[in-house]
Amino acid sequence: MLMGADGSAFEVLDQTVLPFTVRFLTVDSVSACARVIRDMQVRGAPLIGVAAAAGMALAAHADAGDVALRSAASELLASRPTAVNLRWAVAGMLRLLEALPLAARADAALVHARALQNAEHRCCERIGEQGFELLRVAAHSPRARARGRLDVLTHCNAGWLATGAWGTALAPLYRAAAAGMPVHVWVDETRPRNQGARLTAWELGQAGIAHSIVVDNCAAHLMQRGMVDLCLVGSDRTTGSGDVCNKIGTYAKALAAVDNGVPFYVALPCSTIDWELDNGVAEIEIEARDGAEVLMHEGAGADGSLQRVRAAPPGSAAVNFAFDVTPARLVSALICEHGIFAPDQAGMSRLRAMASSAPERV
Amino acid sequence: MLMGADGSAFEVLDQTVLPFTVRFLTVDSVSACARVIRDMQVRGAPLIGVAAAAGMALAAHADAGDVALRSAASELLASRPTAVNLRWAVAGMLRLLEALPLAARADAALVHARALQNAEHRCCERIGEQGFELLRVAAHSPRARARGRLDVLTHCNAGWLATGAWGTALAPLYRAAAAGMPVHVWVDETRPRNQGARLTAWELGQAGIAHSIVVDNCAAHLMQRGMVDLCLVGSDRTTGSGDVCNKIGTYAKALAAVDNGVPFYVALPCSTIDWELDNGVAEIEIEARDGAEVLMHEGAGADGSLQRVRAAPPGSAAVNFAFDVTPARLVSALICEHGIFAPDQAGMSRLRAMASSAPERV
Repeated sequence: MLMGADGSAFEVLDQTVLPFTVRFLTVDSVSACARVIRDMQVRGAPLIGVAAAAGMALAAHADAGDVALRSAASELLASRPTAVNLRWAVAGMLRLLEALPLAARADAALVHARALQNAEHRCCERIGEQGFELLRVAAHSPRARARGRLDVLTHCNAGWLATGAWGTALAPLYRAAAAGMPVHVWVDETRPRNQGARLTAWELGQAGIAHSIVVDNCAAHLMQRGMVDLCLVGSDRTTGSGDVCNKIGTYAKALAAVDNGVPFYVALPCSTIDWELDNGVAEIEIEARDGAEVLMHEGAGADGSLQRVRAAPPGSAAVNFAFDVTPARLVSALICEHGIFAPDQAGMSRLRAMASSAPERV
Repeated sequence: MLMGADGSAFEVLDQTVLPFTVRFLTVDSVSACARVIRDMQVRGAPLIGVAAAAGMALAAHADAGDVALRSAASELLASRPTAVNLRWAVAGMLRLLEALPLAARADAALVHARALQNAEHRCCERIGEQGFELLRVAAHSPRARARGRLDVLTHCNAGWLATGAWGTALAPLYRAAAAGMPVHVWVDETRPRNQGARLTAWELGQAGIAHSIVVDNCAAHLMQRGMVDLCLVGSDRTTGSGDVCNKIGTYAKALAAVDNGVPFYVALPCSTIDWELDNGVAEIEIEARDGAEVLMHEGAGADGSLQRVRAAPPGSAAVNFAFDVTPARLVSALICEHGIFAPDQAGMSRLRAMASSAPERV
């Protein structure tokens, strides 16, 4: 994401046409910002937060009055109901700006949005370092050594496309590859939007990291056959008790990991933790998206252009929940910028203490 | 599947173009028979068995000598490595024909193939009756009554398309619908070949049974949220210990069912049980199919014609295991033509005794 110098616009990579087309979109209004988030041209919990902050900067640039800012905040908050970073970034920006004189708001908003972006990058870099230690341990297992490589399974896309740099779940893999560790990634296709096959495979291919795409149905089988050393996924929203709300299908992968003794790690910036939530299954409302995402399969046709085909009879409808909740009991550890934490009461208390005593993130 | 009167050819419904086109193929040679099985134009464990028997009848019609029959058997056996019914049907036919004088073989083969087909139909009808009892029990639960319907999740296609009539997993649902029970079916899309979205949704739509397609990733979430009363799937191959080898993804659904206290039922004709196998995970070789099935998504384009789009970058490859093994410990019960059996030692012993004392199936 590239922010312009004067705060009147910013550019984002349109993730809905990747990996077939690399296209940047100019976002020059709050409505445009809400639209690119809602339509998932911008996606990934951390990047959504940064984009929303930039959207508030656009609002402040156009009209820094309280009424306009609050209206902008409402519009942005409505764009994706599950993303905690969105709420966090918009609320933080609103609090900051309302405390400033009108004339200072536009500049402050731009500075704040840029600082948030930089903080996300540093945060991901730290996650990469922390997670790399876990990969090093796993690579020493007899099974990984016999195979001559570390096999990591990931779901959806939690790479630099989702955060702006490094990523969360992919950050340790980038770090490991840079250190010369032989890594192979099993990439869950991630139906219905295929972020694995489209985005994660593209990122890994660009970085020269070995990978194989599998259908989501295949992940449990790979684990059952001893072909996965560990799972590493991101999180859109995490409860104070360590429950993880992430892309639909994450819960099923965690069940398979536990059934086969495969560590299941979740990488996240602490900004995705909602400390007010305790029971993710009971308390998190799951976004239901258009069933057409399920029924219409999108990809490149023979001529390379983006096309859609329908894989179901005309009379059949689909139900399309976008996220699910993986209970903390299934998660081996949370990897965040402050370290590695067991998602139990002791671990979450320690994490909360570290997160609250850390210097203000932006 | 329609067998001709003179044994020189039979017709099958081409399942690779459903639900967009209803097309019958004429199979008039052993090679053609092996091809329609290998290319999955004919699919489903029971129907593959019937088709292979019909293929042996074609062989006997053309040349009933031992050499020709054994060559035909080899070619048919190689078409799908996982299907136990294929091995069972071909071996049974070979044994029968080799014991007969040359002149009697062609007619006997045709009679035997037809008898096998009829036996499969009766078998499925029995499975429907047995399974219906379980559905009636489940429909009485407070949760199903509060919802006003019974919610059943199924994976892949184990309907009449897979067996010739009724189906295995769908047979109890057809029976329930006929009895006026309000049933709603969650249809797993079943990547990579989308048999759920394409075949099961089509079957249910034709029968007027309420259903919703979901991505495979969504099944666990539905169970976690109390939206599924029971799971009902088929089996391609079952071990003597009750392990179930079925379409890739079945194992993951069973894990989700167990984690959420949802009964997980497997409907199967006893012909899919391989009594020589004890440990499905260790002993069953899993068919790896072309990665293109994962990378290329097939469906109807805007003009209704069958098209394929690629949902991954050109440099990325896929690994494509077609089946997985669900350990017996995750299965609530096996539903077969002889009744309902717990997949434990006592249940399997009882089932084996009943199956072996039952009159010869054909």
